[in-house]
Amino acid sequence: MEQVSSPIVIALLTDFGQSDGYVGVMKGVISGIAPFARLIDITHEIAPQHIAAGAWILSTSYRYFPHNTVFVCVVDPGVGSSRRSIAMRAGNWYFVGPDNGLFHYVLADQPVHEVVVLDQAAYHLNQVSSTFHGRDVFSPAAAHIAAGTLVSRLGSAVAPATLQRLETTLPQRKDDAIIAQVVHIDHFGNIITSIPLHQVADLFERSQLRLVFPTQRAGISERRRIFASEHDMTSDEQPFIYGDSSGHIAVAVRNGNAARILGVSYGAPVTLILGEK
Amino acid sequence: MEQVSSPIVIALLTDFGQSDGYVGVMKGVISGIAPFARLIDITHEIAPQHIAAGAWILSTSYRYFPHNTVFVCVVDPGVGSSRRSIAMRAGNWYFVGPDNGLFHYVLADQPVHEVVVLDQAAYHLNQVSSTFHGRDVFSPAAAHIAAGTLVSRLGSAVAPATLQRLETTLPQRKDDAIIAQVVHIDHFGNIITSIPLHQVADLFERSQLRLVFPTQRAGISERRRIFASEHDMTSDEQPFIYGDSSGHIAVAVRNGNAARILGVSYGAPVTLILGEK
Amino acid sequence: MEQVSSPIVIALLTDFGQSDGYVGVMKGVISGIAPFARLIDITHEIAPQHIAAGAWILSTSYRYFPHNTVFVCVVDPGVGSSRRSIAMRAGNWYFVGPDNGLFHYVLADQPVHEVVVLDQAAYHLNQVSSTFHGRDVFSPAAAHIAAGTLVSRLGSAVAPATLQRLETTLPQRKDDAIIAQVVHIDHFGNIITSIPLHQVADLFERSQLRLVFPTQRAGISERRRIFASEHDMTSDEQPFIYGDSSGHIAVAVRNGNAARILGVSYGAPVTLILGEK
Repeated sequence: MEQVSSPIVIALLTDFGQSDGYVGVMKGVISGIAPFARLIDITHEIAPQHIAAGAWILSTSYRYFPHNTVFVCVVDPGVGSSRRSIAMRAGNWYFVGPDNGLFHYVLADQPVHEVVVLDQAAYHLNQVSSTFHGRDVFSPAAAHIAAGTLVSRLGSAVAPATLQRLETTLPQRKDDAIIAQVVHIDHFGNIITSIPLHQVADLFERSQLRLVFPTQRAGISERRRIFASEHDMTSDEQPFIYGDSSGHIAVAVRNGNAARILGVSYGAPVTLILGEK
Repeated sequence: MEQVSSPIVIALLTDFGQSDGYVGVMKGVISGIAPFARLIDITHEIAPQHIAAGAWILSTSYRYFPHNTVFVCVVDPGVGSSRRSIAMRAGNWYFVGPDNGLFHYVLADQPVHEVVVLDQAAYHLNQVSSTFHGRDVFSPAAAHIAAGTLVSRLGSAVAPATLQRLETTLPQRKDDAIIAQVVHIDHFGNIITSIPLHQVADLFERSQLRLVFPTQRAGISERRRIFASEHDMTSDEQPFIYGDSSGHIAVAVRNGNAARILGVSYGAPVTLILGEK
Repeated sequence: MEQVSSPIVIALLTDFGQSDGYVGVMKGVISGIAPFARLIDITHEIAPQHIAAGAWILSTSYRYFPHNTVFVCVVDPGVGSSRRSIAMRAGNWYFVGPDNGLFHYVLADQPVHEVVVLDQAAYHLNQVSSTFHGRDVFSPAAAHIAAGTLVSRLGSAVAPATLQRLETTLPQRKDDAIIAQVVHIDHFGNIITSIPLHQVADLFERSQLRLVFPTQRAGISERRRIFASEHDMTSDEQPFIYGDSSGHIAVAVRNGNAARILGVSYGAPVTLILGEK
């Protein structure tokens, strides 16, 4: 009796944008090797060469994909240099891309079962360019994994401990304050900080709390569970603190762009001053 | 004997943009529940929180999809508030999203067979956030429908008559004029009005006709069936009236951006003055 | 015994953008006819009506797709005019779109086995608009090919020699210089010229070489094989010549936008002055 198993998902995350056909070409290559894999775009709009931004978006996304999904991630300013190309089995998923910090949060949160350097030319395209490993090395590797090739056949094993991490600073507790950073500004202008919600589990019970950006010294104290008002759908331009769907402290403006209104951008420092519970 | 039926299509329409991975995460969730469904993006570039714009794009699109397509639509400023989350069978299709007017034109044009409020937590993700029902409620519901779950199992039935409509004004006939609105500016800068072509079926036979925008009081009288000139591929910056592919009166400039040239934007009033036939 | 063959790929390239649902509608139409075909976007961000730009992106992409892929390409300022709608088998692939030069490079590089004009209304949508043949003519044709319909059934044969070409100028050798053009500016701001790498096979061996843009008369002499520096990940704003992954001479700035820094845009003339080997 025949059993039809679910198709493997290959999820793509790059800084390639969508105007050049680079992503389409990657999918063309994948389709020749793994015609039944399911292709899903996470995003191709990571700021060019911005490894940390790519790592963050990956960290908020991968857990929602089925087990055995192969993530092919390319934010790769060092393409063609001595930076390593890797494939990795970590947690319940596979990850393929440059060893440059893009997998920082995956490495922090998931057990790494296996990592190889993609040094087996048989699994590359016939001609490997110096500038487009997304097409020539990473897409074929991801497709071969999706088609059933063991990771160990794609290259030589490397020790997980040698993998590149980002130089990020975790939120620091200092007396009654948490010093952290803006890790993402989303499409709506919502400002996501690096402070995990569980670090301020009593967010909505505290009588006082103040989130301070350099551009907004007065600080933001209002908290809301949701964006909407029951009474009013217009914007009041009033920034408020909320718990973002990625599990972090964030700031929004109802029907408005908080980042623009507050003049806050990616990487800005942020301080959360904790008052009475 | 085995019969392979066509995969169900799940079509997505949101205001999430493509930079954050929000859409990718929705597709990851869907893939875990309905691995054989076919995922098609309608658009994710609806202006943030702009329910009426989303409703319009949906109205121009859904009829071209196969029967049984599940549309998951998320333009949802009221996420987490008391606005209802619904799944609906209407015409030959399924629709999932917030009950906030996004399905206005579907409700106007299709028989509604069944509507439920998505109150069965067994069909949500384990943890439901207050701000991302696209991921936690709507994607799972759409995927379960695509995988064969009856709509009636997803929640409690509600009366179609209670569903939220938009406060739109239909084009008004007033003596020899039709007073209407700009309902869409497309990627090319073409200006689409709310006037259905069948209301001016003799568009190309009338000796006189004038379309007036507030910014262009002289009005536009020229009519063309196509964008091209047989003789000239440059732009002449000359706006003309044509019948848009969605079935509405529209204005374009050959090889130019009519909205920019005329200074017309979404929602602008427009008057069509009918002359002799 | 059942044999499951790979699904046919349909690859889409348009200037429709992603904000209007036009591409989604095309995919809806395709799904009704060829539910098992695999849909891949090359790009929808070709500059509006820019046939030559579309032709170039297609030329850098199609070879990476599996044999029998159907390319449906719509950059079509002449939609509804007397320009022909065609389907073509060329090389190992199928191409569907307007006969307006969009297939220029395919025609230059691949043997054409068969071309028809899409004049068989049975393979169109029931109602064909004057302005959206992507939906009404090209998508159905591509889907029917993917579903197994012979190209010859879609319309009347035409002679390949009659197909429309672009008025492009090939790079001209003139004494010690090659006179060429900028054919693409990519998402990273890299400047791709029309000079094939094989025309300057000794690129990295020549002692002298100078690439001159009108805006940069001093010219660029530095050559690098890769974008990265082993020592420094910041941008040095220093433009350099490299061999692009499409096989052409190009200019980049490490971690910077070369086109913006040099003030170079699409179509700019470029001269490569060859010095001693």
